[in-house]
Amino acid sequence: MNSKSSSINTRIVLSEYMPKGVTSASYFSIDKSQQVPLSGSLADGQVLVKVFALSIDPHLRIYISAPEDMPSSDDPVLLYSPGKTFSSIGVGTVIASKSNKFHAGDRIRGSEFPWQEFAVMNDDAFEKLPSDESTSLQDYLGVLGMPSFTAYLGVVTIGQAKAGETLLVSAASGAVGQVVVQLAKARGLRVVGVAGSDDKTARVKSIGADAAINYKTCGDYVQAIKAAAPEGIDIYFDSVGGSFLDATLLNLNTGARVILCGSMTTFGADKSATDGIKNLDTLIVKEVTMKGLYYFPHVGTQAEADFIQETTDMVNQGKIDFKIDERVGLESAPQALVDLYEGKNLGKVIVRL
Amino acid sequence: MNSKSSSINTRIVLSEYMPKGVTSASYFSIDKSQQVPLSGSLADGQVLVKVFALSIDPHLRIYISAPEDMPSSDDPVLLYSPGKTFSSIGVGTVIASKSNKFHAGDRIRGSEFPWQEFAVMNDDAFEKLPSDESTSLQDYLGVLGMPSFTAYLGVVTIGQAKAGETLLVSAASGAVGQVVVQLAKARGLRVVGVAGSDDKTARVKSIGADAAINYKTCGDYVQAIKAAAPEGIDIYFDSVGGSFLDATLLNLNTGARVILCGSMTTFGADKSATDGIKNLDTLIVKEVTMKGLYYFPHVGTQAEADFIQETTDMVNQGKIDFKIDERVGLESAPQALVDLYEGKNLGKVIVRL
Repeated sequence: MNSKSSSINTRIVLSEYMPKGVTSASYFSIDKSQQVPLSGSLADGQVLVKVFALSIDPHLRIYISAPEDMPSSDDPVLLYSPGKTFSSIGVGTVIASKSNKFHAGDRIRGSEFPWQEFAVMNDDAFEKLPSDESTSLQDYLGVLGMPSFTAYLGVVTIGQAKAGETLLVSAASGAVGQVVVQLAKARGLRVVGVAGSDDKTARVKSIGADAAINYKTCGDYVQAIKAAAPEGIDIYFDSVGGSFLDATLLNLNTGARVILCGSMTTFGADKSATDGIKNLDTLIVKEVTMKGLYYFPHVGTQAEADFIQETTDMVNQGKIDFKIDERVGLESAPQALVDLYEGKNLGKVIVRL
Repeated sequence: MNSKSSSINTRIVLSEYMPKGVTSASYFSIDKSQQVPLSGSLADGQVLVKVFALSIDPHLRIYISAPEDMPSSDDPVLLYSPGKTFSSIGVGTVIASKSNKFHAGDRIRGSEFPWQEFAVMNDDAFEKLPSDESTSLQDYLGVLGMPSFTAYLGVVTIGQAKAGETLLVSAASGAVGQVVVQLAKARGLRVVGVAGSDDKTARVKSIGADAAINYKTCGDYVQAIKAAAPEGIDIYFDSVGGSFLDATLLNLNTGARVILCGSMTTFGADKSATDGIKNLDTLIVKEVTMKGLYYFPHVGTQAEADFIQETTDMVNQGKIDFKIDERVGLESAPQALVDLYEGKNLGKVIVRL
């Protein structure tokens, strides 16, 4: 940092709740009124962090709706409110510490990293990353982080994938989908990937998928899935919800597993304008299991340890191809979230500061 | 049987496939052109059965649609076709046998019992029931049969019910629902039952439910469920699908289980006229499991043995109250199915011949 710009500590603030049916960068504002904190201002147990990169993820859209627009009538999770610095999963480096658990130079990752260049954080709000310089900090937002672990939980823990089965995955060129494809292929499954452009379906095939569907050009979804997987679907890894999910339900085999990992078509949507899922009754006779998958409760479990072991081995052996769609500069973060919702990304979206 | 009527072997035939959106007795016909088979006409491995009672169940509606109207685009299950004798789960007595496994007087139960007074059946198409006369043949269609076992599978095997949790059950005064209520109460759960009349909700409370909802008079479903279960729902045993299911999804707790056991609102329906389920995305963050439950694959499993043990004990100790809605005479069977779909039953519907 140079001495002039370093005094300004730019941050991104949610300026107002985003209404249903809208995903726009205009609901964020850039605030340059704060100064970089001085290390002398730290309290015991606090560290000063230089934010290195932020993870841009679909679930963020859930939390920037007004509480009355949240998808559950139970108490909504109020992570974000207008006027506060926005946050997401992120990585950074400790540059000053008044914590006895962390030292200057430590690399860290946290689930609520502020969208700000420098941040004072409590030492219970993040974890220390290996100092091994063969892995980059970005890796911990990608192939060694949430997207990959989410894929692992879906394919292995919930999906119980078995060789010879057929797995269908939507958003297959995205952050999570690309790993789903490769973990399933490594286990001997037949894999069909779904994506929204020919570039993306080409990418999906290049990382091992046996077939790919461009949902924007394939015509009738039910028939497109049937053509790509005439043997039927044993596992569906869903990140989109909506009518593609509904069509998949008509192509499931007995005992199939559906992993609900995201719902890009309904997160933040005005549901009165959506069609709804009409084929849930097909789950009954086929005894299908449908299960929601959310990353955060699994952090620190045995499944995470197993995942890190397997994925690190795959990375070291060059057996996994993880594409990062990197945006540069904190101020690009709001538009990066919009691009994710508009499908204008290829791979895992991160913002490097 | 008297000598005059015994020569005619009345049967019920599906005369044509039932169209979407219609459930009517007019698609069945009564055929009196056949004679009671003579015992001398049996081939090896066959028995002559006097049909005693037939089980009238919601899933029958799935199979009397034309193949193109079936809920799955996979090969539909073609149990029934126009012109054939209709069938369902049933019980009866062997009156003549050319099987070395069965003898005259044996009581039997089968999954495809013909809707006919007397039937020639192959000896691999049914199972022998205990000869203990303390249990009636009807019990094997009810408290010791499919409805009870289905309830057990939902509450115990899939639901993993734990004391202190809250269970919501729709069609709570019906064949399966009444057992769900009592099995859950026996395990220390709080139980909320849903039914379609004040008579039915009174019945639901009389067998132990802590609260009951009359879905025809309760107003907004989401609020009605919230009022009856402000602590949230841990297990939902669903036999109706549709908008009540959708409303329940907004009242689930983290880690909840939804058992899809039937879908009275969509079986045989014209789905283009239904609203669809819009709140599936709430399953994600709460990591809800939704699982289809179908009775037939569980017959003969350890779960069935466990069920028979537990339920027989409850019956012998007078701890379970199972209501049968008995219709008399084979010719009442088609209307009994219609009444079930119109909610005009109270308890398990059987037709006693």
